[in-house]
Amino acid sequence: MDVPENSQIVKSLLDEKNLIHQSKHCLLDLYNCDVLKLNDESFLRCTINNAAKKANARVLNLISHKFEPQGVTAIALLSESHLSIHTWPESHYAAIDIFTCGQNMNPDIASNYLIKALMAQEHMLRFINRNHPS
Amino acid sequence: MDVPENSQIVKSLLDEKNLIHQSKHCLLDLYNCDVLKLNDESFLRCTINNAAKKANARVLNLISHKFEPQGVTAIALLSESHLSIHTWPESHYAAIDIFTCGQNMNPDIASNYLIKALMAQEHMLRFINRNHPS
Repeated sequence: MDVPENSQIVKSLLDEKNLIHQSKHCLLDLYNCDVLKLNDESFLRCTINNAAKKANARVLNLISHKFEPQGVTAIALLSESHLSIHTWPESHYAAIDIFTCGQNMNPDIASNYLIKALMAQEHMLRFINRNHPS
Repeated sequence: MDVPENSQIVKSLLDEKNLIHQSKHCLLDLYNCDVLKLNDESFLRCTINNAAKKANARVLNLISHKFEPQGVTAIALLSESHLSIHTWPESHYAAIDIFTCGQNMNPDIASNYLIKALMAQEHMLRFINRNHPS
């Protein structure tokens, strides 16, 4: 069946709107990481900044906190949403979120970079769809 | 069968360790919210700060960004991990994460507070277990 030209334009605009709003939430758990790196606040700030940039995201702000006796949280506020890491050096473990909106950012690139940077021997990567009403 | 006293102590310590490390990730999608509130950076900073405190969390840092022409991101770095909100006023929609570690914080209280504060007429709440190796 031939589709009327106007319908194609409307469909294309709707697809574009959906892509612009498409939110993906990537949950990455890293196991058996390098303990020293998990406890190094400066390294982690630099690492999530690099991960975001390599994934084509724009970092608007970056905050972090070093816990006592160990563990770090670092969070980057992005044009494309956020990237966060929480580390538990005593368990050689890190929990990472990469929340992306739109098509600019590639969370797979950020994930692969973080897996290597923290020398994780195992990892679990899950993608959760956020149900934007558009 | 009687459990030897030492086993009970070991079990209790292991349970306590698991509770301390237990991470819950609460994904909250809010629909048909008040548009003006979704675009009000100061209100949203105050709201996530209140939500965290009511849920018994400690806010260590709080950052936000107002996008043009609309939309806000606000992120609170907590002792218990993080609480973030991203808003799309044009869709009357907000995506919220409440990542908690340990037993101190009650994410249900934060969720209920945010649903009411943003006057969401519908919402979807999901809990995702983060698989801490302990």
